[in-house]
Amino acid sequence: MLPRGRPRALGAAALLLVLILIGFFLFGGDLECERREQGGPGSFRCSLTPRVPPDGDLPADHGGCNRSDCVPLRPLPPKCELLHVAMVCAGHNTSRDVITLVKSMLFFRKNPLHLHLVTDAVARNILETLFHTWMVPAVRVSFYDAEELKPQVSWIPNKHYSGLYGLMKLVLPGALPPALARVIVLDTDVTFASDIAELWALFAYFSDEQVIGLVENQSDWYLGNLWRNHRPWPALGRGFNTGVILLRLDRLRQAGWEQMWKLTATQELLTLPATSLADQVWGSLLGGGGQAQGQGEMAVSAQDIFNAIIKRHPGLVLPLPCIWNVQLSDHTLAERCYSEAADLKVIHWNSPKKLRVKNKHVEFFRNLHLTFLEYNGNLLRRELFGCPSPPPPEAEQLQRALAHLSEEDTCLEFRQQQLTVHRVHITFLPHEPPPPRPHDVTLVAQLSMDRLQMLEALCRHWPGPMSLALYLTDAEAQQFLHFVEASAVLSARQDVAYHVVYREGSLYPINQLRNVAMAQALTPYVFLSDIDLLPSYSLYDYLRASIEQLELGSGRKAALVVPAFETLHYHFSFPNSKAELLALLDAGSLYTFRSHEWPQGYAPTDYARWREAQAPYRVQWAADYEPYVVVPRDCPRYDPRFVGFGWNKVAHIVELDAQTHLS
Amino acid sequence: MLPRGRPRALGAAALLLVLILIGFFLFGGDLECERREQGGPGSFRCSLTPRVPPDGDLPADHGGCNRSDCVPLRPLPPKCELLHVAMVCAGHNTSRDVITLVKSMLFFRKNPLHLHLVTDAVARNILETLFHTWMVPAVRVSFYDAEELKPQVSWIPNKHYSGLYGLMKLVLPGALPPALARVIVLDTDVTFASDIAELWALFAYFSDEQVIGLVENQSDWYLGNLWRNHRPWPALGRGFNTGVILLRLDRLRQAGWEQMWKLTATQELLTLPATSLADQVWGSLLGGGGQAQGQGEMAVSAQDIFNAIIKRHPGLVLPLPCIWNVQLSDHTLAERCYSEAADLKVIHWNSPKKLRVKNKHVEFFRNLHLTFLEYNGNLLRRELFGCPSPPPPEAEQLQRALAHLSEEDTCLEFRQQQLTVHRVHITFLPHEPPPPRPHDVTLVAQLSMDRLQMLEALCRHWPGPMSLALYLTDAEAQQFLHFVEASAVLSARQDVAYHVVYREGSLYPINQLRNVAMAQALTPYVFLSDIDLLPSYSLYDYLRASIEQLELGSGRKAALVVPAFETLHYHFSFPNSKAELLALLDAGSLYTFRSHEWPQGYAPTDYARWREAQAPYRVQWAADYEPYVVVPRDCPRYDPRFVGFGWNKVAHIVELDAQTHLS
Repeated sequence: MLPRGRPRALGAAALLLVLILIGFFLFGGDLECERREQGGPGSFRCSLTPRVPPDGDLPADHGGCNRSDCVPLRPLPPKCELLHVAMVCAGHNTSRDVITLVKSMLFFRKNPLHLHLVTDAVARNILETLFHTWMVPAVRVSFYDAEELKPQVSWIPNKHYSGLYGLMKLVLPGALPPALARVIVLDTDVTFASDIAELWALFAYFSDEQVIGLVENQSDWYLGNLWRNHRPWPALGRGFNTGVILLRLDRLRQAGWEQMWKLTATQELLTLPATSLADQVWGSLLGGGGQAQGQGEMAVSAQDIFNAIIKRHPGLVLPLPCIWNVQLSDHTLAERCYSEAADLKVIHWNSPKKLRVKNKHVEFFRNLHLTFLEYNGNLLRRELFGCPSPPPPEAEQLQRALAHLSEEDTCLEFRQQQLTVHRVHITFLPHEPPPPRPHDVTLVAQLSMDRLQMLEALCRHWPGPMSLALYLTDAEAQQFLHFVEASAVLSARQDVAYHVVYREGSLYPINQLRNVAMAQALTPYVFLSDIDLLPSYSLYDYLRASIEQLELGSGRKAALVVPAFETLHYHFSFPNSKAELLALLDAGSLYTFRSHEWPQGYAPTDYARWREAQAPYRVQWAADYEPYVVVPRDCPRYDPRFVGFGWNKVAHIVELDAQTHLS
Repeated sequence: MLPRGRPRALGAAALLLVLILIGFFLFGGDLECERREQGGPGSFRCSLTPRVPPDGDLPADHGGCNRSDCVPLRPLPPKCELLHVAMVCAGHNTSRDVITLVKSMLFFRKNPLHLHLVTDAVARNILETLFHTWMVPAVRVSFYDAEELKPQVSWIPNKHYSGLYGLMKLVLPGALPPALARVIVLDTDVTFASDIAELWALFAYFSDEQVIGLVENQSDWYLGNLWRNHRPWPALGRGFNTGVILLRLDRLRQAGWEQMWKLTATQELLTLPATSLADQVWGSLLGGGGQAQGQGEMAVSAQDIFNAIIKRHPGLVLPLPCIWNVQLSDHTLAERCYSEAADLKVIHWNSPKKLRVKNKHVEFFRNLHLTFLEYNGNLLRRELFGCPSPPPPEAEQLQRALAHLSEEDTCLEFRQQQLTVHRVHITFLPHEPPPPRPHDVTLVAQLSMDRLQMLEALCRHWPGPMSLALYLTDAEAQQFLHFVEASAVLSARQDVAYHVVYREGSLYPINQLRNVAMAQALTPYVFLSDIDLLPSYSLYDYLRASIEQLELGSGRKAALVVPAFETLHYHFSFPNSKAELLALLDAGSLYTFRSHEWPQGYAPTDYARWREAQAPYRVQWAADYEPYVVVPRDCPRYDPRFVGFGWNKVAHIVELDAQTHLS
């Protein structure tokens, strides 16, 4: 290597010579290659300094070093250089996609990362909580409000409201901090199969004029010969795919990017006769890679605009090797790329069918994607050696607390579990917040995988909002997702919020789970229940009526006790009324809750009085009491130090009772 | 790149010039480096053709390109070149380790692999079944019998029988096929964090004289200043670690390797005065990296012998960059390596404490290792694009059958599940086969994660051998392992064989699981039970006595029916005698099995007659009969096409009954 102080001229001269000698064997898009004699001990290498492909002369094959006798060497940015990545993310499902993408990125990365996330309120809420609890070293996250950027793109015709988010890629040079000179922009449906630093390193190959690095489209969509009557937007050849973009923000700003793209969009796209635009809709939505189906009103995507600009100014683009955006759509030509390449870098699920797309090698790509869907994200909390990056203050505190624990402590396992900060993914599935109603109640509970089959029954018994914390591994979270999708009962409910708390440690963090579910309840009252408890069919209505009747809302500190019963039978038909319930009790098919093992836990409920009662009555707290209660949402949280079995609820009821005496 | 036909001289000349200009800045062990200007668009590269470190001149730092201003480029062998890897593997626990190692290797590999496994009978049985059912494309596995190699190394003093296996690395040049010229030899306690092809590519850097590539030891053990009275074996400096070895087998054979190592071992090690050897024992067993504890008889490891040879013939070794064998022992100096390196390639758990070793960054390394422990091995069944490698015939048949399925078929899910070939890891945990006894019975059952808590009770109720199939994900298999380790009852039993069948698909492959468990039973009889069924305490003895009494062994085709009962109560005290059982039946606490839902399934057992019976009696098969039976081990298998719920056992009993009529 060249020592630090050495004049650069010497190394540069050597490389120049290599270039002269062998440069003429190379074609555009090739970065750096090596040829090796089969079996022989030596190696022959062909090398190339950054080279500008001639304006407009887009090579037919963007494979880079994808000939079989030629493998790419790996240039890398300096160790510890901070890499910037921008993504636009809106809604629940896209948030899940982003997390999988980030997992794949973190798995291979060796550099500190700064993620710039343009989000709607839903995605921000989810991702802020996630990254805060994930505590990955050397990852910084900044959020940008998509709502604020909307006016800049909302004038562009778009079929779906969601199409607006796609257009926000265009305004990143203005939206990201002015000091930020370079950024990698990613669609949320890509998966990394290599170190993102290798992609970042391609910035070095930009000529002075180039501002955008893109991979060519791997379908003939923009060539216009895919379907009858199909006339695509203007583009250079197959056009470029915008799933993976290298942006020189500094140069874009200098070049007056905002004006440039707005002018091009107006002149090239919006002025076309309306009839010729009707066909564009689906093709554009499919990012140039999918099937054109149906007709609709006009819609223009960011990809269309990028391509129209590039057609006007071909010198702006640096074509990237195809392996950095292997596009998996139905009509993909990607096989030309990956079957020759030694290595795949990024795969792009750019069909609307996503993982259900059909192509010859989809199993292979699906496996790559599933790898990160199921990957235990806790394992990515690993530091970067030799890159000094102060951990977040919480992580540092935690490390110190953990270091203080004694290995001899018989409660070591408990103390470790108490200190564990679990990764939390709130509203894992699409969720509609309930409309504001003054006496509404959310059922709050927590569960793990083995209680999944309770969910359908619970939904049948409780027609109101629910906030449920699920203690799962990453792989189990995917199983849970499929479980909900396969259930008509569960899919029909938008008012059930599922919050995934990722498993870590050997003890069940019951109160941490309860607190997550409680914190996410959006109604003024919560019913602090258990997953094994099936509410009577009328309970939701009855509770709301009782809250109103008892005027709980008017500053009165009180908890409503819901009497609980249990059966020791596997098969049991649920009572429809208090009369039926009493009959079952008398027949010995039902018992008052835990009356065999833990009578003191429920004694103060006074079941004898309850039998006769026609209206709510007041009960007196006593030691060990742990009833199921309805309380205002802002009531005290559970003590998270209780992990595993025992006392977790008793302690909470003690505190609730103490609070009522304070009032 | 250079085109195929081009004279090589031109490229070589260019590289030579680069070498002359900048070669003098390089130091031994550096392979190829690159320097990049921070933030600038260009790059400066220093390059080096394969270079022989001078004899005996071992560089102080084997870090290769591990300075912060210098990152390694990645040379690779030709695409699709077959890479050879050898490992020595004996016993149950090491087999698990090998699989994790192989998973990490397969995750990053892009080349076809040929694994050469020297195994004992136990490991061969496990790994043959595993690779056969894994069906990974472009992976070939050859087995070599460790028993046959033993005589070649058994004369070397060794403390443990297991130490002999470690010594077998020395005889690989003779044991592997004569046509095999190069091989990578791995300890089973390493984990890959990169593509093994990069390691293979280092063969290109061997000089004509070099035959072994090794990484230096990352502890001061061989320097002899770690403990008082500690005098290590002869070695060059810190010596070399033999966890990762590149072997030029062809040259070793030519050079008379067998004589060389035997002579060195005899002259350098075995002739040392016995007193000075006593201290070696632990250090040697710990691979030069662990703590010396205790004293014992003399033991010499392969590593000791390799180091003694290298001390005599330093020209034989090519020192490899430290990142190819990051050694994680208590006194490791590895931080010097990995904190500077841009990239870690292979980690080596060379402390006897393995993952429980303490060092500053062990969490980081543990996470890397856990990644592959928990990794879904099914996802590694991915083909290598552009490398034509015919899949195993079974895999091809399977592909064809799957392709024939119609998407419209309402039974699609069932048919897919029926065709699924599950990866099978037999005897996942250490297991002692039962001594041969003519009337012995193995309890056979299958379960998934949610029934784990049945195992302890089952062990208490059944003191005999068991063969259990567990349907688990890779991550669950690790949880299961911890579950057994944490249970005194389960850990104490060596006669329970656990066979992991890896999950794939949505339906429970009940009969495939039963067949796996049945095939692995080693006694002449099997009790075909269910995991939810608790045998009466005396059943094991009673069955063996009955088998003897009824002379089942003498060619008589008969099945013994074990009457079953059920309780609908969560809490239940198990009857100790038939009298107690009858009392519970009369009290309504027990029922005859499934008498509520499926009386015909057990009706032919004739429970009324059973009440009165004092001795076994004959029952008559009737439709839908599905009793629990004891049969000879070689009885018909279950029909694997039954997946999910229903008819799976009924069909088997039909076949058993039909077979008795044939006799």
